[in-house]
This record gives sequence, C-alpha cells and structure tokens, in this order.
Amino acid sequence: MPRPRPSSPYSARSPSPMFTLPQKESRKPTTCPGSVSTRGLHSIYGDGLEREAARKPDQKLLYGVGDPTAMFSSDSPHLSSRGSIIKWFWDSAEEGYRTYHMDEYDEDKNPGGIINLGTSENKLCFDLLSRRLSHSDMLRVEPSLLQYPDWRGHLFLREEVASFLSFYCKSPAPLKPENVVVLNGCASLFSALATVLCEVGEAFLIPAPYYGAITQHVYLYGNVRLVCVYLDSEVTGLETHPFQLTVDKLEMALQGAISEGVKVKGLILINPQNPLGDIYSPGELREYLEFAKRHALHVMVDEVYMLSVFEESVGYRSVLSLEGLPDPQKTHVMWATSKDFGMSGLRFGTLYTENQDVATAVASLCRYHGLSGFVQYQMAQLLRDRDWINQVYLPENHARLKAAHTYVSEELRALGVPFLSHGAGFFIWVDLRKFLPEATFEEERLLWRRFLENKVLLSFGKAFECKEPGWFRLVFSDKAHRLRLGMQRIRQVLEGKSQVAEDPPSCQTQEPRGPHR
Amino acid sequence: MPRPRPSSPYSARSPSPMFTLPQKESRKPTTCPGSVSTRGLHSIYGDGLEREAARKPDQKLLYGVGDPTAMFSSDSPHLSSRGSIIKWFWDSAEEGYRTYHMDEYDEDKNPGGIINLGTSENKLCFDLLSRRLSHSDMLRVEPSLLQYPDWRGHLFLREEVASFLSFYCKSPAPLKPENVVVLNGCASLFSALATVLCEVGEAFLIPAPYYGAITQHVYLYGNVRLVCVYLDSEVTGLETHPFQLTVDKLEMALQGAISEGVKVKGLILINPQNPLGDIYSPGELREYLEFAKRHALHVMVDEVYMLSVFEESVGYRSVLSLEGLPDPQKTHVMWATSKDFGMSGLRFGTLYTENQDVATAVASLCRYHGLSGFVQYQMAQLLRDRDWINQVYLPENHARLKAAHTYVSEELRALGVPFLSHGAGFFIWVDLRKFLPEATFEEERLLWRRFLENKVLLSFGKAFECKEPGWFRLVFSDKAHRLRLGMQRIRQVLEGKSQVAEDPPSCQTQEPRGPHR
Repeated sequence: MPRPRPSSPYSARSPSPMFTLPQKESRKPTTCPGSVSTRGLHSIYGDGLEREAARKPDQKLLYGVGDPTAMFSSDSPHLSSRGSIIKWFWDSAEEGYRTYHMDEYDEDKNPGGIINLGTSENKLCFDLLSRRLSHSDMLRVEPSLLQYPDWRGHLFLREEVASFLSFYCKSPAPLKPENVVVLNGCASLFSALATVLCEVGEAFLIPAPYYGAITQHVYLYGNVRLVCVYLDSEVTGLETHPFQLTVDKLEMALQGAISEGVKVKGLILINPQNPLGDIYSPGELREYLEFAKRHALHVMVDEVYMLSVFEESVGYRSVLSLEGLPDPQKTHVMWATSKDFGMSGLRFGTLYTENQDVATAVASLCRYHGLSGFVQYQMAQLLRDRDWINQVYLPENHARLKAAHTYVSEELRALGVPFLSHGAGFFIWVDLRKFLPEATFEEERLLWRRFLENKVLLSFGKAFECKEPGWFRLVFSDKAHRLRLGMQRIRQVLEGKSQVAEDPPSCQTQEPRGPHR
Repeated sequence: MPRPRPSSPYSARSPSPMFTLPQKESRKPTTCPGSVSTRGLHSIYGDGLEREAARKPDQKLLYGVGDPTAMFSSDSPHLSSRGSIIKWFWDSAEEGYRTYHMDEYDEDKNPGGIINLGTSENKLCFDLLSRRLSHSDMLRVEPSLLQYPDWRGHLFLREEVASFLSFYCKSPAPLKPENVVVLNGCASLFSALATVLCEVGEAFLIPAPYYGAITQHVYLYGNVRLVCVYLDSEVTGLETHPFQLTVDKLEMALQGAISEGVKVKGLILINPQNPLGDIYSPGELREYLEFAKRHALHVMVDEVYMLSVFEESVGYRSVLSLEGLPDPQKTHVMWATSKDFGMSGLRFGTLYTENQDVATAVASLCRYHGLSGFVQYQMAQLLRDRDWINQVYLPENHARLKAAHTYVSEELRALGVPFLSHGAGFFIWVDLRKFLPEATFEEERLLWRRFLENKVLLSFGKAFECKEPGWFRLVFSDKAHRLRLGMQRIRQVLEGKSQVAEDPPSCQTQEPRGPHR
C-alpha cells in the first residue's frame, strides 16, 4: 500500500508536502515500444544524442531492456572485444569528472575552479571522521591481519557487522555472522551477485531513474543487463507521489522483458533511493517482495543510505526489520560505509543473506574483492563504537545534512525550481524541464554542459536512465562556502538560460574537448 | 640460452648443484594425446582420482588444455550455472585448509594441531613488519583518502611504485607512474587481464607445474582457460636442468592447442617460479619473449617473489631490467607485497605495462578491485622507506629465509629425499615419487592425506598441474619450532610409509569427512 507522505519544512509550498512539482493531470501510457533492446542504457558513457533526439519526448515508456554495448564503436587492437568495451566505459564515463579533476575548486588555490555537486559524497563530517579514525585504537598490526584472510571476511568483523546491522536495521532477531560476507564495496557486490545469480545476457529489473553505475557493475564482469522499470513524474490514479514504484509497473516491465525473450533473474531496490531520495514504506517493500516471490526473482536491496535519513519523521525501515520476509532465501541486503560514514575511499561493503549458496558463491569471488586485514580491523573498531556513532557522529551528521539541505532547497525555491526530496540521502532531484527549449536529452546535456562551463558539476537525468529529459541530481552534502558558490553558479546559468534557450548556439552540439570548456 | 646453474650449499650432493634428483636417461615423448580438453586442470578442487588412475603413469604429456568445469557436478537451485561452478570451487578447493583451520597448531593452546607447510606465506618477519607498520607515520586520515579514488590508484602511490620498481627491478630508464595500475592483489590482476585480453573460452599458455590458483583467477570471472606447457623432471639433450622451460616446449604446446581449435592469447611466466623456485636467466627470458612476439602473444610476467631471492649468487633479473624488450606493448609485469613483504592479508598488487589500452581497461575494472585510501597511503610510506627496506628488512629477511631453507634441505637430505631448490621463494619442490607404491595421482593424494592425518599440511603436485605424480611443495618460511615439528611429522610418515606402501589399506581411498582425519 502506498503510504502517506510525511510533512516536511523543505517543500511547504508543494501539494504533496515533500514535493514541489506542479501536478499534471493523469495520463495513461500511450505506447509500449516493441523492441527497445538497442536503446542505450548508457548515454552517460557515449553521447547517443541523435538517437535520443529522434525519440518523441512525450512518448511514454514502460520499460527498457538495456544493451550496454549499443553505443560502442572503438575496438583496440590489443584488447579482446569485451576488453575494448571495458576500456570504452572508462574513456567515456569520465567526461565530467575528468574536466572536474583538471580544475577542482579550492578556496585558496583555485577559487575559480569547478564546484562538484555531482558526486554523491558526504563532505560534511571529515572533522569527526578524522578525529575518530586517527585514534590510536585504529592502528593494530598482528600476524593474522597480515596473513591470507578468510575470504568472507575475518570472523571478528563479520560478528561486528551482524551486531551492527541487527541494531541499526532493527532486525526482529539477531543477525548471524555466517550470513555476512564483507568485501571492498557495493560495486564489487553487484558484480559478484550478477555473476553468481545470472547466466550471461540475463537481466535484473530496476526502477528508473537509478544510480547509473549499477549498469557497469552488473555488466563489465557479469555480462548481465538491466531492465528499467520506468517511473513517471506525473501522479496518476493509484499513485500518491511522483516517480512512485508500483507493482503494476514491475509486472509490466517484467512481462515486457519476457516478451522480448529476456530472462529476468532478480529485482534491484535502492532504499533510500538514489537519485530520488525516496523511501519505501514497509507496506510497499512487502508488496515488491511479494511480486518478486511470485516470479521467483532474487531481490537485492541496496541500503547504502540507511543511516543518512536526516529527517526522522520519514520513518525509514530496513528490509531486515520486516517480520517474515516473503522469500528470505532470495532476499539479499547490501550495505557499505561509503555513504553512511562518508568514506567512499575506504572500500568497505557487506552482503547479508540467509542463502548459504549465494553467500558461498560470493565469498568464492571475494579473492578478487578482498580488503586489507588492517581495514577490516579498523571497520570492526568503528562499527562497535556505538557511543561515538550514536552520540557524536549520527546526530551531528544528520544536523549538518539537514542544514545543507535546507539551504539548497530554499535556494531552489527562490529560483522557482521544482524539486523532489524526502529527507534522506545527499541529493535533491531537481526538475529543470522548463529550462530546456525542447524536451530532449540533447538539450538536457547542453544545459549540463553550460553548468560545467560555469564551473559547477551536476549529474543529468539521463545518467540515471530517467525517461523524462530535464531532471538533474544536485548533491548538497558539502560545506557551506562551496554550496553557496555552487548555487550562485547554477543561478547564473538558469537566469541566463531563458535567453540562450530562445536562440541555442549550434556550436554547442559539439563535444567539448578541452578541459575547461 | 640455458644458463649454467650456480653452485649452492643446499644440495652439494647433486650432480646439478641445486638439484638432488637422480638423473634418468633421456626419454623422448611417446605420445601426444589427441583431445585432452576434459582432463581436469583442477583435481585439487575435486578428486578426479579415477580419471587420473586410468592414465598410464609413464605416458608423456606435452601440453594440456584445461577445462575447469570437467569435474563439476553440483548445481545449486539458487545460482546460475556459473554461480554453481564458482561455489563449487570454494567448496572443493578448501579441503586441506578447512581441516587446517579447524585444528591449527598453536605452541601453547594446541600443540597437537596441524602445522601448515602448505600455504606460501613468509612467517619469518612479523616482528620487523609489525614494528615498521605500527609506526605513527602509517596512520594518516585526510579527506582525499576518504573520497572516491582514482581507480588506477592514487597518484602519490603510483609515483612511489614506479620509483620502487625502477630501483629494485634495475630498469634501464625510470619507470613511469602512468604505466602503473594498483589494485588489491595479483589474483585480481590475473582476473582483470584475462578478461580484457581474451574472449570467453580463449586461453593463456603456462608452464606447468605452476601456482594452481591462477586457474581460478583467469576462469571465475574471465572464463579464460590455461594451456599447460608440461615440464619434465628428466634432463634431456638440450636441457641443463630438471623442469626446464624451452622454446621447443612452448612451440609444441601452442601448436597442440591450435590443433584443438583453442585460441591462445598470451603466455604467463612466473619468475622466480612457483612451485619450482626456478629463476629465468635474461637469455631465457628473452627467448620466451621472442617466442611470444613471433606469435603475437601477450606475456604476463608474475614477479611476486622478486625480492625473495635469498641466494645472491643466483643473479635474479626482472624482466623490467632488460634493454629493448621484444614487444613492450604486449609485456605486462605483475608485482605485489604479499610475498616479498610477507603481507598476503594486506591485498596490494600492481601492474606495470607500457600499453595504455591495457592499463586503462584494467583500471576500468579496478572499481571491483580497489583498495582503501588508507592502505594506499601506508604502501606509499613503506615503499619509499628505502633505508628500512635495504638496511633492515631485506638483509634480515634473506638471512632468515636462508637459515630456514638450510635447515629443511638438510633434513630432506638426511631422509634421502631428492628435491629442487634454487635459492628463491618460500618453498622446496620435493620428489616423493619413491614413496608412492604406484605412480598415480591417487597415491599422491593418499600420501598427502597421511601427512595431514599426521598433522602436517603440504601441497601435492597435482595442485600445480605437475604431470608426474609424487611431487610436493614444502614451504619452509616459518619459525624454527614449527619447522622442526613439521619435519618430524613428515619423517614419521615417510619412515612408516614403506610398510604402508607394501599393503595399502583400502579404506584410505575414502574421502575423510571429519576435520581431524
């Protein structure tokens, strides 16, 4: 059952309290495309503009089967064909980030450099983390940490993870160390799960927009594809909020994929959602899990933002808190420290699954996803320090996230920019559709490039497989001075934008080659 | 050109100074098997005894195309077929180690436990490492280490690796940071290289016996097979030492694979070799590289034991020391701290290649093989500390390795056991053929199990794809009290063995199920 949206101070002018989009009238799907298997899941990695521009902007899509190689066209004589594709992902994925890294903003050394509001990192708590992680209890060298580990993770760490997740996920019964496999981040976990659950060419369902890197994670090694369950910004009869995931949509996407001969093996849920910031209620979660059970699908629940719910009233619930999961043997939970502890560079992630076949198969691949014994020791120290987590880190982190979120959402309101946000995560899902002269992904990319040229990096909606051009993800979990400058630069682009939109310069359709364009 | 063997104190009674095997008369290959594609590369992971027993022990093999799934027979309903195979590797690979881990020797707590002379780890220098790694300069927390890294590795580390390898590999010109990609160990590097260089089902050549885990590393994700270039213990006309790799053998194995329709994309060289302890001379290396160039093969040179050459007279030379590599764009060097710094639990490895396509493709996969920013910082600190490495660590490590090696080799001589050893690595390649009642891999495994039952873990030759039953790898890089006890237990088995050999009990053909059998 859809749950009512809680009220929030961030979007007081919105009819749905957490949502400032104008509500359009209900519209039925007009078409279900026949074969969409060559539609690029990956326009972020190639431009794909012609293809996108040719698609009618108002065409309503229900699902899309990804073909990550659709845009690919640059074989290397030294590499295998898959090696060439793997390299091409690197080369083309990084346009914005390469530009950014060549001209990073620095308050003193490069005040005219690029402000990064594109990468989902929490930069608000380095002081707290630095103090805790520099503590002398973090440096311990003992023979067992220097020797080959248990590839599932050292037992002392798996015990700590089980205890940590039991507490913070509010599991009805204590979670067990034997169901835990630790590895160097959730990217690796997606790669391993895709490989052990799917044959080559099989697929997972995923509600879109979604964190686009997952496409690579399941494809590069595993050769597994994603079937997008496209969500709509418009609220129709059975929906209570924009981009709402319903079982109907899941069913339609699954049937669509089957009709194209694609075997679907699982469903990926991100909760809190990235980029929507959406949170699934226990009732919704259970509906999705029941849907998966009916179709014998595995469910991977990515909860990497579970402790980054800074608005308590939203009442986040981990899937591990549910009594009597519909299909516990096919429910696999993912968590990491990258987001909730602001440490994407630490490379620590964990799987929790009752399915011992899945745990063992993932562990077998952990030879390739192992993390240092030292880091395992540090993580155990961190996760067991409940006093620091509960009394220092989480309250302060949430307060800072909330303040940053308040600032950015007020700025957006002042700009008359609609947005979605639910009090969780590091980002706001921003509706810049009215700033596009035409509703195409080409125009979306041009706008993104204007932001970059004005020295602020955002993420455009196509990178998340959003089907409506004009949405952007804006990361707000950054220090006030950078946020202020970033918002100022966004404002400059948007305020200059109406003029440009009337007369778009044709030269802008060229890919920028230099780093500072 | 084969090089002359240097003299050594370890095997004074041998005609070839470093070798104590009786030299048999030269024997020509009698047969080249037609299709060997179902011969298990992996008997270590399944027993495969019937199959092996059926093969005539004196049959001479020139090559073998691996089919890692040949022994597989246990699908899981929750996993894909490849997931089931991946899980089965875990389940069956670990018999000895599971037994060991349930009954580890401890001087005080479990003096009757199993002594591990099977795992190639250096346990001689924990005191030195612990002191160095506990130093306060090892703990540094800064924002950049906590944020998403450059997936090739932080630049400060790649610079340090380039400088370190330039110095210790004695490269003719300084090596470059842009040719360095760091990741969490050489297992990952094999996985990544196999995937980016080969299509599914293609193969690498590898001289056998070889470090058997490479089979999994190239297969589990990459689906790449190994073609064994079988080496012989007997010295024939053109060879100067046992198990000598010659270009003739490489050519024959390559042609054999081609005749079976197997596409070979590369050659793996391990130098110093594992398990032989062999070292390739610059002349030999160049011959192998020229062979590879003639056939447009990539060469992966695994030099993880390069600083563990404890006998200076052997004159080890890294491939990076050669002037004018035959095909630098296809020469890829691997190194790690696991062996040379006795830190298999730290998970640090590196690729050095001039080929930017290969470097970039591997980097693209490094999202799944990343290591913590903290560990990257620690490794940079360690590698730049030349005073400690040159004046403390290496001299002491080499002295301890030498002393341990001397002790074990003298014990073996006293037992009348022939062995191979070249003053490099952590192991001795031991010839126990005369202790087998029949020259079969079944008997080899039975002997291995008797060792295990007598609480000493060794590695049997089949695990390294040695084609002659009866060879074992014995790791000597352990503390004196454990070595003494381990050797005592080996002696007990071998001295009791002659009797058993005359009347092998049939119950011994059963797999042991309990942990202490």
